[in-house]
Amino acid sequence: MAETRTGPRLAGHPSAAKTAMAAPRILTVNGGSSSIKFAVYPVGAGKPDDRPELSGSMEGIGTHRCRLKAVDAASRLICSKKVHARNHHHAAKVMVEFLRATLLSSSISAVGHRVVHGGIHLNRHTRITAGIIRELKQSVPLDMAHLPREIILIESMIAAYPGAMQVACLDTAFHRTLPPVARLYAIPRKFARQGLRRYGFHGLSYSFLMEELRRMTPAKAKGRVILAHLGSGASMAAVSNGRPVDTTMGFTPVAGLVMATRPGDLDPGLLVHLMRRLALSPAAAERFINEDCGLKAVSGRTGDMRDLHRLARRDAACREAVALFCRRARGAIGALAAEMGGLDILVFSGGIGENDAMVRRSICRNLDFLGVRLASSANNKASRIVSQPGSRVLVCVIPTDEEKMIAAIVRRHLRSRRLR
Amino acid sequence: MAETRTGPRLAGHPSAAKTAMAAPRILTVNGGSSSIKFAVYPVGAGKPDDRPELSGSMEGIGTHRCRLKAVDAASRLICSKKVHARNHHHAAKVMVEFLRATLLSSSISAVGHRVVHGGIHLNRHTRITAGIIRELKQSVPLDMAHLPREIILIESMIAAYPGAMQVACLDTAFHRTLPPVARLYAIPRKFARQGLRRYGFHGLSYSFLMEELRRMTPAKAKGRVILAHLGSGASMAAVSNGRPVDTTMGFTPVAGLVMATRPGDLDPGLLVHLMRRLALSPAAAERFINEDCGLKAVSGRTGDMRDLHRLARRDAACREAVALFCRRARGAIGALAAEMGGLDILVFSGGIGENDAMVRRSICRNLDFLGVRLASSANNKASRIVSQPGSRVLVCVIPTDEEKMIAAIVRRHLRSRRLR
Repeated sequence: MAETRTGPRLAGHPSAAKTAMAAPRILTVNGGSSSIKFAVYPVGAGKPDDRPELSGSMEGIGTHRCRLKAVDAASRLICSKKVHARNHHHAAKVMVEFLRATLLSSSISAVGHRVVHGGIHLNRHTRITAGIIRELKQSVPLDMAHLPREIILIESMIAAYPGAMQVACLDTAFHRTLPPVARLYAIPRKFARQGLRRYGFHGLSYSFLMEELRRMTPAKAKGRVILAHLGSGASMAAVSNGRPVDTTMGFTPVAGLVMATRPGDLDPGLLVHLMRRLALSPAAAERFINEDCGLKAVSGRTGDMRDLHRLARRDAACREAVALFCRRARGAIGALAAEMGGLDILVFSGGIGENDAMVRRSICRNLDFLGVRLASSANNKASRIVSQPGSRVLVCVIPTDEEKMIAAIVRRHLRSRRLR
Repeated sequence: MAETRTGPRLAGHPSAAKTAMAAPRILTVNGGSSSIKFAVYPVGAGKPDDRPELSGSMEGIGTHRCRLKAVDAASRLICSKKVHARNHHHAAKVMVEFLRATLLSSSISAVGHRVVHGGIHLNRHTRITAGIIRELKQSVPLDMAHLPREIILIESMIAAYPGAMQVACLDTAFHRTLPPVARLYAIPRKFARQGLRRYGFHGLSYSFLMEELRRMTPAKAKGRVILAHLGSGASMAAVSNGRPVDTTMGFTPVAGLVMATRPGDLDPGLLVHLMRRLALSPAAAERFINEDCGLKAVSGRTGDMRDLHRLARRDAACREAVALFCRRARGAIGALAAEMGGLDILVFSGGIGENDAMVRRSICRNLDFLGVRLASSANNKASRIVSQPGSRVLVCVIPTDEEKMIAAIVRRHLRSRRLR
């Protein structure tokens, strides 16, 4: 699909001016607990190396330090300013104003929304209709931490771009073909029928990583793969012969690995004991396991791995937090490999996975028996391949790009509409 | 220590009559939720092959079908009768009456009690004093499922055998030297200081299995060992170079593997969601995770693995329950092996581990990469060694004997008193 791009000429930048014509574009929207990430892609691209025309974020929504930042296709800063955004509804308005001032708003022909939890019935990326919004609203009790905010962003974008196609890109879709037993909890069967199953998350990242892997090493990518998305949220997925086999997150993103502020797997008896001891209501318990646990809780200092490394030299609690994170990740690799009968590729991604050589080294310690042999210098440089040439398991570092994956999903929806 | 044994001549049996002299004996007491197991050992024995002079059980305490059964040293049934026992206090009285009628009660010179949870401060087997009982009572909130009943049995035995040494044999003692990080949860650090850590259980069984292994294969027993105690409660322990490295149960025995009525590890977010949805109080949630989950819940039929196999031919839910049990066990082996950097010995024990060839086979499926190769015929016969001769990992089936371990611990306490 050829088309003429004017390229973004952007407000607040020396070359800034509204683009001369409304080249069709895709806007991606990815809302976090106090942030929104967004990016604008040309509709007609989708090459492995395609870059957003602009991308940006608002961080600190709901605080008095909320900032809007954006960069252009060459990663040049084109905006960094303090803004007022009491909540995601306001933040969405600020973002749209910024985009209108920077691009011709009418040029947004589709918006792709990251949706963490698609609920019980929605397990594929889908064009958003009134029925889909109703469906998402009904699923709110399954994901009170993300869905309400995501629905606000969807409704804001429909209001801002009424002519644009809106697409829900689900983090759960990647895992929809998990084997039934992998989705099952050992709780009364009626609850499984009601949707209380393992969903798994980080699916946009996993889809992106698998596409990258297939490009890098098409034959080996069909083998037994563990994808480790390690960021402030952290999970792993096992993929064998191109099919998802297991994942560490569960019904909610609280399960599995230790995270910045979430505990990962926790003895259910311990959780009940804590709720009794602290007289926690379910709502308070939900806040506790989402915000007050994990690395932050073990270190007593911070949930940020970079800060933990800095503090670890003098602070035993920070060292323990890092050690616990790595130990649990190592255990998860063993568990996932056992389900696949071994391992061919291990991929590190996410903020920690991409940037933290020390964590990668610590996780891979003792994994010789699986065939994992890191190459120190490659690991320290975060080369794309960080295993030794003779390592049976290929260990890679692949920067993930959820925005690019959202844009790719939206392009497919646009194409399939045109074909109809 | 030589001594003359008269051998038990037992009431209710053709040869029954009170023993002629009060040979010193050890009574072991192991209370379950609705049962007591007990056994009587000579003080001066402790050979690998020593058998109890008599052993018995009361099952169905609190129901109208409570039965007392006992066998002699040759495993001949010497008693099987319906008894009335409303609770563990009454059951203890019935047991003592039976022992008095069968043996000279004054011959009990020591009583060994299985204590599942030693609490925060008590982490070694110990002679029971008034101070220890106070300590146990203070620890009740840490193990409401077992400690209250165990304290009743201890106090009953002190009343019945006031001259006997009473010894608390802790299931947690085996794990007391776990690495600190293995004991840590990703919850606020102050809770770890207050004792909310991983304790691990089934320690009497694990101690017994390690002693057996050291006898069987002294050199290899120093390697990397996984002990799988699979019964209605199920857990695994990793032991490397003779030191415990990790275990699947946690602060409570609810964590880890799928069990008859316990779920094992569960997404904390799912548990909170369920508590909200079902309006469960902490006490109700505790009952739920102890009694209403696990194999029983997934099958919707039974928590008994033997029945599940029988039903599985026609019932998909029963098949799924078995598959989930095996899958989670396989994952745990992978996770524990990853922590040890591989595996040299895998031991199956407990009611399921000792008797269920199909479960052993299913768990070991896909574990070739670890060096596990089962020998079909040996596995079907439950030989002591069930791996192929060329298997890098030695796979064993070892019947556990917690009573024998309790007797051995009590003997050590009796000896150390004599030495003082």
